[in-house]
Amino acid sequence: MIIRKNQAQAERTERETFGVTDTVRLAQAGGISQYGANVQTLQPGARSSNRHWHENEDEFLYVLSGEVTVTEGTEAQVLHAGDAACWPAGVPTAHFVSNQSNQPCSYLIVGTRVSQDVCHYPDTGRTLYREGNAWRLLEANGELFKSGVF
Amino acid sequence: MIIRKNQAQAERTERETFGVTDTVRLAQAGGISQYGANVQTLQPGARSSNRHWHENEDEFLYVLSGEVTVTEGTEAQVLHAGDAACWPAGVPTAHFVSNQSNQPCSYLIVGTRVSQDVCHYPDTGRTLYREGNAWRLLEANGELFKSGVF
Repeated sequence: MIIRKNQAQAERTERETFGVTDTVRLAQAGGISQYGANVQTLQPGARSSNRHWHENEDEFLYVLSGEVTVTEGTEAQVLHAGDAACWPAGVPTAHFVSNQSNQPCSYLIVGTRVSQDVCHYPDTGRTLYREGNAWRLLEANGELFKSGVF
Repeated sequence: MIIRKNQAQAERTERETFGVTDTVRLAQAGGISQYGANVQTLQPGARSSNRHWHENEDEFLYVLSGEVTVTEGTEAQVLHAGDAACWPAGVPTAHFVSNQSNQPCSYLIVGTRVSQDVCHYPDTGRTLYREGNAWRLLEANGELFKSGVF
């Protein structure tokens, strides 16, 4: 199944701390379920997420355009079109992606769809548990912060 | 782990019927094992493979540059940068990718690494069975054509 550029609708998220991100869920649009493959465009100042790492999901990023800042641990590096990043499942390299330039930047991000995952957020000490479509986010002390269904 | 453009070595394959293809195995270079994520560059006249479909592997293609011809069944369509194609596991849309232009073209191709797969090649009637690292290719009549280890 072919999906032409701009055929799949971008979903915009706009959050005070994370800025403006547009996400096009290409794999989902094409009926793929074993992994996600999204094109994300970050506006200047935006970031993709909190610093995190996954126990069970392999993550892969490929830069399409602009200046994509990848922070691993405390080290920030600027990536350009054709540069990539890999975060294998279970390797505790906490990371996030941001746009520290004054132009939009975009990348393709792939992540395995696993039935069970644990995602760690070292900045807050929180941990996200996923089982099937259900998730629960625990505080560092183990208390429930939020839960829901994807 | 960051992999800069041109940091990972391209592997060249040159076959009489398929032409010249360069493959950069980015996910493998970054230690990812749940799926492959390769940048492939086809020289003019090259094609990626025989027409095929997988029972258990989701396949995803994202065009990076040039004119990428995607043939699904007998229908050929030319894709450009930003166009994508999805071939979900188990959907019998036999496909292949080729370069029918006079310039190189390139795309990112993602495929799940599954422990068991069956791949169908309708043009020859052959079937490829994969179990772990072992594979065997059977003729349409069920006789063994070739076997090996990945």
